[in-house]
Amino acid sequence: MSKGVYTFGGNRNEGGAAMRNLLGGKGCNLAEMAGLGIPVPPGFTLTTEQCGAYYTNGRKLTDELQGEIVEALRWLEGVRGCGFGSTENPLLLSVRSGARVSMPGMMDTVLNLGLNDQTVVALERASGNPRFAWDSYRRFVTMYSNVVLNVEHGLFEAELERAKERLGKHLDTDLSVEDWKAMVVAFKAIVLDETGAAFPQDPMQQLWGAIRAVFESWNTGRAITYRRLNRIPDEWGTGVNVQSMVFGNMGDDCGTGVAFTRDPATGEKIFYGEYLINAQGEDVVAGIRTPQPITRTQAAGTGMQSLEEVMPASFTELDATCKRLEHHFKDMQDIEFTIERGKLYLLQTRNGKRTAMAGIRIAIDLVDEGLIDSNTALRRIDADSLSQLLAPVFDPREKDRLRHEGQLLTKGLNAGPGAATGRIALTADAAEKLAKEGPVVLVRIETSPEDISGMVASEGILTARGGMTSHAAVVARGMGKPCVCGASALQIDLAQGIVRVGNRELKAGVDWISIDGSTGEVFAGQLSAHPSEVNQVLVDGSLKAEASELYQRFAKIMTWSHAAKRLKVRTNADTPHDAAVARAFGAQGIGLCRTEHMFFEGDRIIAVREMILASDAEGRKKALAKLLPMQREDFEGIFKAMDGLPVNIRLLDPPLHEFLPQDEAGKREMAAVLGVDLAIVERRVAQLHEFNPMMGHRGCRLGITFPEIIRMQVRAIAEAALNVTAKGIKAVPEVMVPLIGTVRELAFTKAEMVDEIALVNKERGTQFACPIGTMIEIPRAAITADRIAQEAEFFSFGTNDLTQMGFGFSRDDAGSFLPEYVGKKILEDDPFQSLDQEGIGELVRIACEKGRAARPDIHLGVCGEHGGDPRSVVFFHKVGLDYVSCSPYRVPIATLAAAQANLD
Amino acid sequence: MSKGVYTFGGNRNEGGAAMRNLLGGKGCNLAEMAGLGIPVPPGFTLTTEQCGAYYTNGRKLTDELQGEIVEALRWLEGVRGCGFGSTENPLLLSVRSGARVSMPGMMDTVLNLGLNDQTVVALERASGNPRFAWDSYRRFVTMYSNVVLNVEHGLFEAELERAKERLGKHLDTDLSVEDWKAMVVAFKAIVLDETGAAFPQDPMQQLWGAIRAVFESWNTGRAITYRRLNRIPDEWGTGVNVQSMVFGNMGDDCGTGVAFTRDPATGEKIFYGEYLINAQGEDVVAGIRTPQPITRTQAAGTGMQSLEEVMPASFTELDATCKRLEHHFKDMQDIEFTIERGKLYLLQTRNGKRTAMAGIRIAIDLVDEGLIDSNTALRRIDADSLSQLLAPVFDPREKDRLRHEGQLLTKGLNAGPGAATGRIALTADAAEKLAKEGPVVLVRIETSPEDISGMVASEGILTARGGMTSHAAVVARGMGKPCVCGASALQIDLAQGIVRVGNRELKAGVDWISIDGSTGEVFAGQLSAHPSEVNQVLVDGSLKAEASELYQRFAKIMTWSHAAKRLKVRTNADTPHDAAVARAFGAQGIGLCRTEHMFFEGDRIIAVREMILASDAEGRKKALAKLLPMQREDFEGIFKAMDGLPVNIRLLDPPLHEFLPQDEAGKREMAAVLGVDLAIVERRVAQLHEFNPMMGHRGCRLGITFPEIIRMQVRAIAEAALNVTAKGIKAVPEVMVPLIGTVRELAFTKAEMVDEIALVNKERGTQFACPIGTMIEIPRAAITADRIAQEAEFFSFGTNDLTQMGFGFSRDDAGSFLPEYVGKKILEDDPFQSLDQEGIGELVRIACEKGRAARPDIHLGVCGEHGGDPRSVVFFHKVGLDYVSCSPYRVPIATLAAAQANLD
Repeated sequence: MSKGVYTFGGNRNEGGAAMRNLLGGKGCNLAEMAGLGIPVPPGFTLTTEQCGAYYTNGRKLTDELQGEIVEALRWLEGVRGCGFGSTENPLLLSVRSGARVSMPGMMDTVLNLGLNDQTVVALERASGNPRFAWDSYRRFVTMYSNVVLNVEHGLFEAELERAKERLGKHLDTDLSVEDWKAMVVAFKAIVLDETGAAFPQDPMQQLWGAIRAVFESWNTGRAITYRRLNRIPDEWGTGVNVQSMVFGNMGDDCGTGVAFTRDPATGEKIFYGEYLINAQGEDVVAGIRTPQPITRTQAAGTGMQSLEEVMPASFTELDATCKRLEHHFKDMQDIEFTIERGKLYLLQTRNGKRTAMAGIRIAIDLVDEGLIDSNTALRRIDADSLSQLLAPVFDPREKDRLRHEGQLLTKGLNAGPGAATGRIALTADAAEKLAKEGPVVLVRIETSPEDISGMVASEGILTARGGMTSHAAVVARGMGKPCVCGASALQIDLAQGIVRVGNRELKAGVDWISIDGSTGEVFAGQLSAHPSEVNQVLVDGSLKAEASELYQRFAKIMTWSHAAKRLKVRTNADTPHDAAVARAFGAQGIGLCRTEHMFFEGDRIIAVREMILASDAEGRKKALAKLLPMQREDFEGIFKAMDGLPVNIRLLDPPLHEFLPQDEAGKREMAAVLGVDLAIVERRVAQLHEFNPMMGHRGCRLGITFPEIIRMQVRAIAEAALNVTAKGIKAVPEVMVPLIGTVRELAFTKAEMVDEIALVNKERGTQFACPIGTMIEIPRAAITADRIAQEAEFFSFGTNDLTQMGFGFSRDDAGSFLPEYVGKKILEDDPFQSLDQEGIGELVRIACEKGRAARPDIHLGVCGEHGGDPRSVVFFHKVGLDYVSCSPYRVPIATLAAAQANLD
Repeated sequence: MSKGVYTFGGNRNEGGAAMRNLLGGKGCNLAEMAGLGIPVPPGFTLTTEQCGAYYTNGRKLTDELQGEIVEALRWLEGVRGCGFGSTENPLLLSVRSGARVSMPGMMDTVLNLGLNDQTVVALERASGNPRFAWDSYRRFVTMYSNVVLNVEHGLFEAELERAKERLGKHLDTDLSVEDWKAMVVAFKAIVLDETGAAFPQDPMQQLWGAIRAVFESWNTGRAITYRRLNRIPDEWGTGVNVQSMVFGNMGDDCGTGVAFTRDPATGEKIFYGEYLINAQGEDVVAGIRTPQPITRTQAAGTGMQSLEEVMPASFTELDATCKRLEHHFKDMQDIEFTIERGKLYLLQTRNGKRTAMAGIRIAIDLVDEGLIDSNTALRRIDADSLSQLLAPVFDPREKDRLRHEGQLLTKGLNAGPGAATGRIALTADAAEKLAKEGPVVLVRIETSPEDISGMVASEGILTARGGMTSHAAVVARGMGKPCVCGASALQIDLAQGIVRVGNRELKAGVDWISIDGSTGEVFAGQLSAHPSEVNQVLVDGSLKAEASELYQRFAKIMTWSHAAKRLKVRTNADTPHDAAVARAFGAQGIGLCRTEHMFFEGDRIIAVREMILASDAEGRKKALAKLLPMQREDFEGIFKAMDGLPVNIRLLDPPLHEFLPQDEAGKREMAAVLGVDLAIVERRVAQLHEFNPMMGHRGCRLGITFPEIIRMQVRAIAEAALNVTAKGIKAVPEVMVPLIGTVRELAFTKAEMVDEIALVNKERGTQFACPIGTMIEIPRAAITADRIAQEAEFFSFGTNDLTQMGFGFSRDDAGSFLPEYVGKKILEDDPFQSLDQEGIGELVRIACEKGRAARPDIHLGVCGEHGGDPRSVVFFHKVGLDYVSCSPYRVPIATLAAAQANLD
């Protein structure tokens, strides 16, 4: 076993910031500070490896480790000039956890260790402050008994309350030395009662117990949960920091506090923190006394006294030390300090947690201040946090008001960031009508492609069912609309036009509702939502770039990211508007232009239904001929918006039944509009019914059965490209075939496409051509990608469907077990949100390898939700894709993630 | 280019039977016969390689080939002592196709080539038979014009008919020489009229045309279709045999015929064939004259004259030659012969096509005769044909009678071999009731697991929807019941209790229906069906082994197969009865014991539904406790039946909604039986509804959500094994977890299982243990098989689901496009019938490789439909599985296929 104990401070500083993995964050930074000459109470750190050793050794400390600890303890006694357990000048210790990464509040701490019935008397003498000594002892008994002996904390509190009542005293500070002495006796009685053994008086026994308790705290339920949520491997383990105590509670020339070198909420460069006079660290967070502000600025107008005013010398030293620490660690620091009789000690420093917005601001400011370079800044920003820069926002005070008024109805999944407010519409039709009078929120049990026009007309979408990748969530994010999904408390009564939540009833078309897609909150009533400043600059044009600091930060990140990345970032867009938005956000092309939405718009659905009802190819061709000019016009608009950039168009994908009404009224209406018997409509609907539509007659299978659909679409693309080219626009179409499983499907489809393009060229005397490729979204396609690459000029990974088929998870149904899977750690994440790299990623890797082997210049991309997930983007970078494609509002996120991937 | 022409016969015999791939079947056998000294008219063969060369050379004969042909022609003239195009002694040729394998009637033939207006006169002179010469010429003009010049055959026939009418003559033989001469003039006029060019008079031009026509005939639609159906690669090509003509039509001392060395229908060892006096080969098959029997035995009682009687010398020579050929080729031969002026020539010999039953008999007889060994016999038998030995049969004469009476209603898919007759039942309940009065055929639109009891009670199953792997088909084959599926002409009117086909109406419970699952035929009315003799011996015991030749043949094949194979063959069986049947058929264990069927039987479904309605684990446990004794009893029965052999039990697999009623009446009944509100039942049914149930909450996902189900099942298995062991029975259970996608699912499930087994052992003081493994049926599981093998002691490939997920094909829905896929050659086969080796097979191969790498002694098997498909079995042998498992009635087929795989 390698060395298990590293000392810090005093005359023997064995660690440093570079040893984070071995010493944990707290331990290595204590050593680093000591090395810088910053006052740190000396002590020693048990390495994180010892945590694993503790568990493999049957949850016991090894003999070697015990030896090293005793040796370090002797050294510490020497440095501090006192003795552990000494009845003259006792050494007291704090024992605290410290893992590689901060897990705040997750693990245990014991302070004042070493006190017992004898040493408390010595402390009384040495400090000349009996009240302090006995207060410290009762704190120790409470804390140790709770953390190490598992005695319930409430028992001590109840005892203290009873004593105060008996004594007629209100505050802790009202208690006398004698009172505290009596409390210690009472507390020890509780321990004996609860554990069947006396409170341990032997300081060494106390120390072994505290160290064991810290190691044990690595595996409490809350720690395990925290690690899972934050992707911290179980095997990392925690270190243990044993440090000599300094006291902020020896009198009014003492104090303790926490501080941030910048505002962790906004990122503003102001020194920011709280402190208490005559207190120990735990008091600051315990909420019994109100902590005071550290700076004069902070204190202004509060009537409170700042440290800057009360202890100016200590404040000046603290301020200087913090500046030095931030400069040294090149990041915003979160510190703990104690002032013992006027002398400042630093107990901890770490990179401070911060809000997403603060993270962005700090990273950029540090670059401006010359502390870090832009690439380092990019690596520090959570890519997902950019979505907060783009989403519309509610005024937080207005939200608070509604919350206080009891208008918070429920909370669903925060499926599409942003804030939306509007009158309630329960159907797409109603949404479209109501939208003419004012803002609308579409409220549905769940959405389907037929709701698209209603979703477009609405400010936001709220559903009672469905997860983060349900139709509503995916489409809403694609549109950049706020969306709250799976708000299961909602009961939607379509017949009466009412939404019920508990006893509350809201009337469709009358009552207002507000949803916060960043938090999942659903409010009754109206809130004002504003588009983000970035949108106001880039999309509305209602704000000048110079006027928005937020926009300028955003622009900086984008500029740096584009310079730092290799992967191109495209967007998934089906309309000129979406294409234009994505382009404004930096999209380098369209990676997925779905064509099915073009089949729903306006009167087109009539022609589509006519095609579906047709009994032969001729009938279908007649109906398709009506769609051709509309589809051509769609493509012209998109080519214009993306002038000069590639536009990857996917042929029709969904099963035909999605275009037919499923309800009685809809069927009747369809029969009337098309002038056919209801029975014919009903028969066709029944014929097209599928048990597992996800794996049914869709994608390329449609085009193989009905090649005339492919031909119409390809003709529309070719004619649109030729038309806009004539107007000086550079159209760069690519066409991809969905749901390919075998190369022969692609060969068949491609032959139809090539033939139709040849017809167009012959008619027009032109030479139009474009790359033809395929989605890789069927496991068999990934496995046989070498064969498929013989026909495909590019692959676009459809990782949504690849995840569905690869796992055998229906995205629409997996909600019944996926949360449990993540909960039971069977899956680390919802694989629809973040790519399963081990399994589905392996299919992607195999397909890339086989595809390149068969066609070395094959162009590789990914479209679908994973293209906008930062961790997935890193994976796609690693396997060597050429681009990722995601919804317009994820483009900036993917851009930053692509840069981060390349910087790693 | 290598040598393109090989001569045979005469003094230069360059080929032989070993050169089949190069010379084609006909060519190599002609050379082989010539080599044996059997009289064969000499000629030469263009190799099959030249067919490919023809196409790559722009559908032209290469100069090199033309040179070789001319050289061979010169040689042939020398051998025959006549000249091609000679006006004195003209050489006439036949030009015929010949691929590696016989494609009877698929490609073209030209006889009498070399005749023209001059050579016909020479032939007239040389033969001394003007009528023969002009008859031959008119035959040649007809055949050449049709085959080479694409002139419609009917035009010549019509002309001939008009002439006969004009002349007042009825038979071809009534026509005089002058009549035929006039016909030739008329025929040539037709050619000029149709093609715009005169009939070619240059014999070399005729020869080039005929050779090109044979090569072209390789790619006619019917040839391509035949190749697809028979899995003949397109690139093989056909050879061309150019052979000097001999004439069976020179007079009454001439003749021609075809013969089989054994009866191709029954396999009986009798010489069998047909001939015509004074005719050319085409006349035998043309049907204008009635061919005569060859042997006296054949002719007995027909009033016809046998060759044996008419030309005894030629017959004796023919008989001896045939015996020699059969002996030489060690297989039943199909020969063509011509007798020219008393001299016998063999024009072709090949292994004869035969019925499945004949194939079995001949192979076995040849072993008995010492011509081949048992392994050779096994390789010759079509494994699938064994199903005909096992299926119940209708009397063919009775079928003919019904057919003539117009009682053949329709034809569906021959989904389960065998014959069944009974009264019509339209529901499972009705089937069970009606079965008490007599035999029943269950007629459904499609079946579901709720129909199982009705299927058990019925003689056979008929459905209007669904394919070869629909629920009805799979379950019926598993039960060994005759089944006809997808008979879409059936209209089932449940309300009125009527089945309609066209205008016919059959009343449920009253009218009889008969289905032949081997042909797909559906008859109105009653037919008598008998169990196969093999069943009578092995299952009924109603027949003694010695009394059945069929059984004895079956037994021989099984004995030989068991000796020759490496793969073990298990069965899929859920009941003691099925297990016993499979064991009688040679099953070496159970590879898949589904447990869901045990949840439907009798009153169990009530407890199952109670469990599903339960709101918590306690409620579920209470309901499961009722199932435990029943499930335990099931397992005891199966262990008894399989005493000493492994029984692989799969934990519950289907989604829970399959156990709930979906219709109004069913829901009402369930609510009444369980004593709960209808609303509760309805809510639960709605909750459990899934969009894609195939990829929903099923398989191991159920057990992870409801571990108490796993625990009940494992307890039942352990207790059953311990109970029967106490009675001296050797239980060898294995337990497998379905639908595993990640190793953590298996680890979770296994932990529950191991814990429950430990509980049982603790309660009973026993040491029960059994292997725990997993299905590999999710693509992700195959891809991560190394991880999964860390927890799995065995893999059982569920290739049905692996095909569904790997292709993204829902088996229930793929009927809407799969037939088209096979038709358009996008897929060679329905991948649910025969494993897709390139894609899904690759997943199996990867999983085997990864599984073995992680756990070298991992046990590997396959269950599901592919385990009984001979071609798939060969694949499973190759990738090194330890066993295949299939339905009881496929066990003999898989056994033979396993032997064949090992012999290859």
